[in-house]
Amino acid sequence: MSGNTLGKLFTVTTFGESHGLALGAIVDGCPPGLELTEDDLQRDLDRRKPGTSQHTTQRREADQVKILSGVFEGRTTGTPIGLLIENTDQRSKDYGKIKDQFRPAHADYTYQQKYGVRDYRGGGRSSARETAMRVAAGAIAKKYLREVHGVEIRGYLSQLGPIKAERIEWDIVEQNPFFCPDPDKVAEMEDYMQALRKEGNSIGARINVVASQVPVGLGEPVFDRLDADIAHAMMSINAVKGVEIGAGFDSVTQKGTEHRDEMTPSGFLSNQAGGILGGISTGQDLLVSMALKPTSSLRLPGQGIDVHGESCEVITTGRHDPCVGIRATPIAEAMLAIVLMDHLLRHRGQNAGVESLTPVLPG
Amino acid sequence: MSGNTLGKLFTVTTFGESHGLALGAIVDGCPPGLELTEDDLQRDLDRRKPGTSQHTTQRREADQVKILSGVFEGRTTGTPIGLLIENTDQRSKDYGKIKDQFRPAHADYTYQQKYGVRDYRGGGRSSARETAMRVAAGAIAKKYLREVHGVEIRGYLSQLGPIKAERIEWDIVEQNPFFCPDPDKVAEMEDYMQALRKEGNSIGARINVVASQVPVGLGEPVFDRLDADIAHAMMSINAVKGVEIGAGFDSVTQKGTEHRDEMTPSGFLSNQAGGILGGISTGQDLLVSMALKPTSSLRLPGQGIDVHGESCEVITTGRHDPCVGIRATPIAEAMLAIVLMDHLLRHRGQNAGVESLTPVLPG
Amino acid sequence: MSGNTLGKLFTVTTFGESHGLALGAIVDGCPPGLELTEDDLQRDLDRRKPGTSQHTTQRREADQVKILSGVFEGRTTGTPIGLLIENTDQRSKDYGKIKDQFRPAHADYTYQQKYGVRDYRGGGRSSARETAMRVAAGAIAKKYLREVHGVEIRGYLSQLGPIKAERIEWDIVEQNPFFCPDPDKVAEMEDYMQALRKEGNSIGARINVVASQVPVGLGEPVFDRLDADIAHAMMSINAVKGVEIGAGFDSVTQKGTEHRDEMTPSGFLSNQAGGILGGISTGQDLLVSMALKPTSSLRLPGQGIDVHGESCEVITTGRHDPCVGIRATPIAEAMLAIVLMDHLLRHRGQNAGVESLTPVLPG
Amino acid sequence: MSGNTLGKLFTVTTFGESHGLALGAIVDGCPPGLELTEDDLQRDLDRRKPGTSQHTTQRREADQVKILSGVFEGRTTGTPIGLLIENTDQRSKDYGKIKDQFRPAHADYTYQQKYGVRDYRGGGRSSARETAMRVAAGAIAKKYLREVHGVEIRGYLSQLGPIKAERIEWDIVEQNPFFCPDPDKVAEMEDYMQALRKEGNSIGARINVVASQVPVGLGEPVFDRLDADIAHAMMSINAVKGVEIGAGFDSVTQKGTEHRDEMTPSGFLSNQAGGILGGISTGQDLLVSMALKPTSSLRLPGQGIDVHGESCEVITTGRHDPCVGIRATPIAEAMLAIVLMDHLLRHRGQNAGVESLTPVLPG
Repeated sequence: MSGNTLGKLFTVTTFGESHGLALGAIVDGCPPGLELTEDDLQRDLDRRKPGTSQHTTQRREADQVKILSGVFEGRTTGTPIGLLIENTDQRSKDYGKIKDQFRPAHADYTYQQKYGVRDYRGGGRSSARETAMRVAAGAIAKKYLREVHGVEIRGYLSQLGPIKAERIEWDIVEQNPFFCPDPDKVAEMEDYMQALRKEGNSIGARINVVASQVPVGLGEPVFDRLDADIAHAMMSINAVKGVEIGAGFDSVTQKGTEHRDEMTPSGFLSNQAGGILGGISTGQDLLVSMALKPTSSLRLPGQGIDVHGESCEVITTGRHDPCVGIRATPIAEAMLAIVLMDHLLRHRGQNAGVESLTPVLPG
Repeated sequence: MSGNTLGKLFTVTTFGESHGLALGAIVDGCPPGLELTEDDLQRDLDRRKPGTSQHTTQRREADQVKILSGVFEGRTTGTPIGLLIENTDQRSKDYGKIKDQFRPAHADYTYQQKYGVRDYRGGGRSSARETAMRVAAGAIAKKYLREVHGVEIRGYLSQLGPIKAERIEWDIVEQNPFFCPDPDKVAEMEDYMQALRKEGNSIGARINVVASQVPVGLGEPVFDRLDADIAHAMMSINAVKGVEIGAGFDSVTQKGTEHRDEMTPSGFLSNQAGGILGGISTGQDLLVSMALKPTSSLRLPGQGIDVHGESCEVITTGRHDPCVGIRATPIAEAMLAIVLMDHLLRHRGQNAGVESLTPVLPG
Repeated sequence: MSGNTLGKLFTVTTFGESHGLALGAIVDGCPPGLELTEDDLQRDLDRRKPGTSQHTTQRREADQVKILSGVFEGRTTGTPIGLLIENTDQRSKDYGKIKDQFRPAHADYTYQQKYGVRDYRGGGRSSARETAMRVAAGAIAKKYLREVHGVEIRGYLSQLGPIKAERIEWDIVEQNPFFCPDPDKVAEMEDYMQALRKEGNSIGARINVVASQVPVGLGEPVFDRLDADIAHAMMSINAVKGVEIGAGFDSVTQKGTEHRDEMTPSGFLSNQAGGILGGISTGQDLLVSMALKPTSSLRLPGQGIDVHGESCEVITTGRHDPCVGIRATPIAEAMLAIVLMDHLLRHRGQNAGVESLTPVLPG
Repeated sequence: MSGNTLGKLFTVTTFGESHGLALGAIVDGCPPGLELTEDDLQRDLDRRKPGTSQHTTQRREADQVKILSGVFEGRTTGTPIGLLIENTDQRSKDYGKIKDQFRPAHADYTYQQKYGVRDYRGGGRSSARETAMRVAAGAIAKKYLREVHGVEIRGYLSQLGPIKAERIEWDIVEQNPFFCPDPDKVAEMEDYMQALRKEGNSIGARINVVASQVPVGLGEPVFDRLDADIAHAMMSINAVKGVEIGAGFDSVTQKGTEHRDEMTPSGFLSNQAGGILGGISTGQDLLVSMALKPTSSLRLPGQGIDVHGESCEVITTGRHDPCVGIRATPIAEAMLAIVLMDHLLRHRGQNAGVESLTPVLPG
């Protein structure tokens, strides 16, 4: 399949450039009978939306999603769900320099090399704006998983540059512009971002996502393991440079006695595995963490080259997120939901009627 | 597609259980005309093979691969390549306990829950023995990439538990049983493993893989990005819990000025990106790193449950790798080769005739 | 992949119900650099459009397509092409009876059984209106194939109920409302359709499609043969009940000496194969023929059942094509174009650099 | 996916050349818990096997299949099933002429053009010998469908050249070498084949396949319709040139009142649709028919060209089926089984829990 489709039984295909007419998606394979309205999607879109705080890009997009098909009388019909967001903030502006320059650490250079042509307006297809459609599609999966299986998918920013969240209060996450779960760190993050903006620089971040009440048995070894598909989905988000499941890179220095999650009749005693063994969900919480690089759209000049191969100094003005990680939490949740949804359907297809012969451990 | 196929245009489908009759694979989509013999595959299989040093499992498998189709008069024909390795070391033994127990941190529990049945002999399909076929298939991709594009794919163990390789001497890698690139650390690793074996414990590891001379332009945004597909492939290897591209998790604390790889007419000035921008290869070295957990097959007793849901003490005797990371280097190389091969073919299909309008930077 | 995507490297995914807000498609994998405007698509859409003659449904749809992405400064960029047609003729009407009845030979019953719910307005997703998006997407493939390889794809109605076209004058095809290639049969068809309309009945048809200047070598044995993929694509068109390649069902009574297409240095002496041998294109004309059933939307009453399982008399009023085959010619052309395009890209990916060792016969 | 894989959730991937070491397949996605032995596969393989009567090729192949994985203690485990048939009848012979000639109506020419190389021994990959693996894989699907849903899949030869079966006695089908269901035509077919063999010619055939007790609701509009996937599967069989569902090409001259299958509370009154409406199974018998061309391997000389582009006279000696249709019945049954199985799993995945709101009609 071509590169803009995700999933095998529950599939999401997207299109759209940053400064084109619209973004769109086709969500195929959604089971029939799910109550669904545009509001269900809008809630997560609004969480991702730029311009909601001073810490994110001031580009203003309504990100108003329309459901064009696949829903009838308030319920999904099993036919493909067409989604559309029209781009409203397409300022006509002079793209002269961007057109002729390859900005360092942007996709300008690689798109040009791959395709021999590129839509340079606002990054074109490589813009993070594309992730709006992931969020919309993911909201469908989240709703289905929640309603049918009680699965809860939640994310948070666990680290903003040097500042780590040290405890998780879920109530706090949605009450600050960073999705930070640690109430004691919000002010510190505010200050850090102020300074950063003044400096004209950007910073990386770490996002964690947790899925609870995940059915046991999801994932298809040996290649379509649940963890492998999660890693794929997360690494496909703009700016993500690393993905961990459970103990992640801490496993490198762990001994077997430390890493192995012992089991008792009342459940697992720990969750180093992050909810996946042998590529299949255990029923414990899924624990996923990812690193997002700092954006390279900086006011501070950097060395680039131009389309003639000449050296040039690149300064990016305009409206950019100094920390792309801040808005990534809803995106990461959406990706996890899409992967789980796909695996749920695949599992049901191939294993319908399997009676677990053994007691299911508490999650 | 079902879970045992990897790739879209260059595909690898595998079968086989640890203690079944044989392992096999079908490699489809390999271009015609490549010179190929069983020796080309055997070399990497021998690098992965157990029992070659005292630091890996003493199970002895010849791992002798046969090419059953797709090669005629010494060259590939474009038809599917059938590969087979017969299992020779199938000791008849009493599986009584394993049969009734779920070992902590093994796939016993999840396979049983997913399928309602499991082949408990030696881990069945969840055994790392399955990776032999990945190595065989990857060797085909490696050879094609090297012969047609000069791509070189090499890996090494960069960390064994607490011991980090501090420099990379490629010549050293193949001259010690750890694939360690730092000659000063080999003895330390030997000692560490001796002590570990005495203790009856296991340890994690970090593996790095590097691809050089990668053509610019590989990768299909937005979902089938090169980095996303690499993350998928690596995370699908048994025991892998984390994957990084380029700066990876260090990006979290990097500022934009630090992370961005500036460009000059003579090339990139750094490689924080790890050779991928916007999901597309830049032509720089691809830098991939992964974490492998310690195996959970330990002599030291741990708490598990049995098929009746009762608590039980689990002790794993028999032949097991105390550090599964040691043999993972050839596997990781193979996975990277398969992903690159698939993307090379996809790129050629969709972008044949694209004339790069811009100067290609030195890799 | 879910059911609304066609192709592997050049993919078309569609959405939309007959009386929903819009129809849409995402065309992914189109090579960059192709000049493309909405006019290129509109031409074929207008050929398929209802209401252009008295012989097709009088429902009036502008079928005005918009390109929402993937084209920049008049050329494709290699990113997904988003297409949209808004439904304009959505009369509010009383669907009371259709809502509660399963019409004979319609998809009402099967959609309800499969999904437990259905959008009964105008047939919902099962309406032939869905094929508008196939035509739009196919126009992109047709243009690429023509411009890059000189491939010409043309279709015609070869039989309308009992009336067979006996000769093919390509110039005539676009000059009558039936796509009939035989100027001597047009008047006869007019009369036949008049009588049929008066009777309140419908009739089947046969459509032929021919592709010329097809590159030799397209098709991927053994399952993704070119003929198999063509059969799939054609049979996926509403109302198609049979597909033939070359001699088709005449092969049943042919002897080998009659069927085999002999070869001479100046080319093949016949084309019973229809341009495909072993699932791979020979370079001769591709010859495809298909049967379309008569529509079941009739004024003449028929026995159906209602949602309570009770018998009911079904009479379909409203605007329907008495011969759905009449508008099928552009659809069949589009499907053939999509299949050829996909195979062209796949072939280029896997066989780039293959130098034909043998003389290519004239097509 | 590459061309040698069929299906999406239940997948069959095959390899192997006519005169290579072995044929093999990987069947992935088979639900766990199905009792399965090699005998289950062998029965259908023996029905397809050459050399069982004087009317088929006298090449003798044991076609003894081995199950290498995916079955444990007599039941499937949900992991991929590896299948292998070793080629035993590989006479060493002189291929001198075949090597340098392109036989008319064979795949020699297209394979050479596509791949630049070909395995000319016995047709290599393009040989009908490849279908043995389809039969073995199909036997798994047939068994599952029969045991879990009572689906019965049966085929027969409905026409041998000019001789049509006029009635269907299922008991007769397996009692004559032609799979002919009409006891009155067997002797006529015997005589016809004798004369044909004496003449040195070959003849086409028509095969019908019927599936009964098919669950309602299988098929994924709009592209992966059940009829479209059946057409694909059938047309992928060597020598098939046409496929019909239900009324097939008779639909061309049918009126709507004749074609539409009326419904009453006790069931459908006819089955012109062949068991599929809107691409979804109705629960009626699936009716599929296909045309097979006469083989082109004839003793009677024909014009071909050689690898130098020179004209040559081609005479095929050796062991060939004068009517390839005779052995095609088990192959067509297998293909139908694989398609139904795949759609059954897909349907269960996406529509689990759908409660039919309406009465299911008797099949």
